[in-house]
Amino acid sequence: MSILTEMGQKAKEAAVVLAVLPTPKKNEGLCAAAEALLAAEKEILAANQEDVAAALASGIKGAFIDRLTLTQARLEEMAEGLRQVAALDDPVGEVLSMKTMDNGLMIGQKRVPMGVIGIIFEARPNVTADAFGLCLKAGSAVILRGGKEAFRTNQAVVLVFRQAMEKLGLPADIVQVVPDTSRESANEMMRLNGYLDVLIPRGGAGLIQSVVQNSTVPVIETGVGNCHIFVDETADLEKAVAIVMNAKTQRPGVCNACESLLVHEKIAEKFLPMVGGALQSKSVEIRGDEATCALISAAVSATEEDWATEYADYIISTRVVQNLDEAISHIRKYATGHSEAILTENYTNAQRFLNEVDAAAVYVNASTRFTDGAQFGFGAEIGISTQKLHARGPMGLKELTTTKYIIYGNGQIRQ
Amino acid sequence: MSILTEMGQKAKEAAVVLAVLPTPKKNEGLCAAAEALLAAEKEILAANQEDVAAALASGIKGAFIDRLTLTQARLEEMAEGLRQVAALDDPVGEVLSMKTMDNGLMIGQKRVPMGVIGIIFEARPNVTADAFGLCLKAGSAVILRGGKEAFRTNQAVVLVFRQAMEKLGLPADIVQVVPDTSRESANEMMRLNGYLDVLIPRGGAGLIQSVVQNSTVPVIETGVGNCHIFVDETADLEKAVAIVMNAKTQRPGVCNACESLLVHEKIAEKFLPMVGGALQSKSVEIRGDEATCALISAAVSATEEDWATEYADYIISTRVVQNLDEAISHIRKYATGHSEAILTENYTNAQRFLNEVDAAAVYVNASTRFTDGAQFGFGAEIGISTQKLHARGPMGLKELTTTKYIIYGNGQIRQ
Repeated sequence: MSILTEMGQKAKEAAVVLAVLPTPKKNEGLCAAAEALLAAEKEILAANQEDVAAALASGIKGAFIDRLTLTQARLEEMAEGLRQVAALDDPVGEVLSMKTMDNGLMIGQKRVPMGVIGIIFEARPNVTADAFGLCLKAGSAVILRGGKEAFRTNQAVVLVFRQAMEKLGLPADIVQVVPDTSRESANEMMRLNGYLDVLIPRGGAGLIQSVVQNSTVPVIETGVGNCHIFVDETADLEKAVAIVMNAKTQRPGVCNACESLLVHEKIAEKFLPMVGGALQSKSVEIRGDEATCALISAAVSATEEDWATEYADYIISTRVVQNLDEAISHIRKYATGHSEAILTENYTNAQRFLNEVDAAAVYVNASTRFTDGAQFGFGAEIGISTQKLHARGPMGLKELTTTKYIIYGNGQIRQ
Repeated sequence: MSILTEMGQKAKEAAVVLAVLPTPKKNEGLCAAAEALLAAEKEILAANQEDVAAALASGIKGAFIDRLTLTQARLEEMAEGLRQVAALDDPVGEVLSMKTMDNGLMIGQKRVPMGVIGIIFEARPNVTADAFGLCLKAGSAVILRGGKEAFRTNQAVVLVFRQAMEKLGLPADIVQVVPDTSRESANEMMRLNGYLDVLIPRGGAGLIQSVVQNSTVPVIETGVGNCHIFVDETADLEKAVAIVMNAKTQRPGVCNACESLLVHEKIAEKFLPMVGGALQSKSVEIRGDEATCALISAAVSATEEDWATEYADYIISTRVVQNLDEAISHIRKYATGHSEAILTENYTNAQRFLNEVDAAAVYVNASTRFTDGAQFGFGAEIGISTQKLHARGPMGLKELTTTKYIIYGNGQIRQ
């Protein structure tokens, strides 16, 4: 038995206990884990400092180091996140529907835990706490496999959670971390059929593609967002500038940021210089088609590749289109199905865009930056699904559950 | 561009039309397809006779030939199935929820078509019509890849459907059949990411495993059922015999048939001879543990392998257990998560079984044979999901759809 199948076995046993755990006990576990996290500040920050030092020594720098680094304030955020999950409604046990058939069978559909959830993620220690908290509340055991640069930190955090569970008489194996960050362990995890009910990758496009390509357990694909804003002929141009600026620059590194701007030709002459000036004031590079470059002198020529690129940076591709149809065609060709927006005062065009654009979230007159579990009122999210199976868009507690049919009979046999 | 990517491209184009097709037009398409099927009886039966003759010549026989063979009556059933799907409610367009957030954004979740659905199945021509009908009503284009023995039949049936679509001004590519039944074409279909939104295998365990192991597009695993009935100490034994007989013998070849019987030790002495006699009268082979063999002289010894086997035949494995806990442990170890039943008059045991057994359908005092789309009131089904992602249990029209978030704003930007 390999380490991973052994972990899978232990997770399955913990899941049996978790599946019938009353809500107050799960909430107690979450609050105890939050407290334990703060109490272990010294050990966790020490482990994290080792990780950061090793990463710096290997030449890593910039935003990566920032995401890897824990501070007292970040530990407090992680603890607060766990407490917030405790305050959310428990999704488990809800009977979504129940009806009595002609033969007297009462058939109901009940929300139940997944069982065992696997999460593969990069070197962001906060994901460790988020994933543990959401899975626990949703009644599932979790196996975490974080990026190698955060290895010591993840071990330290998970150890604290496990000890907190045991103190409450709960199985420590509610949460496990893979003690091996080799590519082989990731690949084995992707093929842990019979143990993992679902595998969720959280991270960049490379990680997600690797999981999609190699996994035989069911996967929920998350995150890649080449998001568009189409500024229609009738858009309120002041609002349009504010929305484009928000969607592009409020936090350019995230998946719901705007990457590509489509502008109706009838307003291009007026709108492009307006938005161009605003973008330049925030040092956003504009890669435009010919019409854009003619109207914004600072714009550079976009290549075919630009239309398909999620920059996650202070860059935006920009194109002038003839009408709504051309905008929808462009989106159909290049978008990743994440978040798409139309800015318009035309009722019919708004409804057409909502109906005809195929994405997890489709907006009229708002920034794409709202595609987020907290903004949607879910309290917390495990990621944003860009696939169509099981969950689409921000995934909260409900999306981490499944259902089963429960049937009450009194001797029925099939004719 | 390979044949399959070309088919994928055409399906995507057809899906764009289908996604916004009004319900009456879809129903018109279904009824026209039903009529066309009957009108083409001569051509379809001729193609089918060639398939059957080739199968017989290659040494195939028995139930396989029966499933492969079309008759006028079976064509009528297929046409009637299409008309029944036309009569079902259209799942597309339902807004499952919509709420107004504090910032004034109205966020709704709307049921929308999947897009393109792939179905890989064995030599059962009726699946061709079922799958086409359900996918059309659910607003998705479908790519079918049937077993090679039914190749000519499937081509003939799909040609009829395509012509019927064109006559109504709809895209013929709503339905396509892969013109190649090689293993390579199946493998390529399993990796048609970017074109297929979901792939559903329909058939035996070998086919399903091959799809699960090789597919990079999202899969819904269907069908394998090692279903148990646990006869508790307080069961009504007359009803229990009737239920076991129904679940085992009413149609032994299907996935919701009972394969394994667990009997509480306190009633084994009375119940096993009762049920043993009934099973023997229908020539069911009983493979039992020691206690069973001591009470049913005709029973043979079960091996470890028996407990894990879906016989799909007139065979049942039988074991005496000490109590509910042992029954649940046995089911947890050997079941495939399809359909499980407890027969009991004990309220607490009934509720515990419903809560603690992890399966798509869990029954109290009824036959496992009811796990079926029609029996659950869905009208028709595309298969029975035994995985936890997206759909679990019988899959009707709703399970062939996905959702998207639609957001109405008036200039909101994220703080």
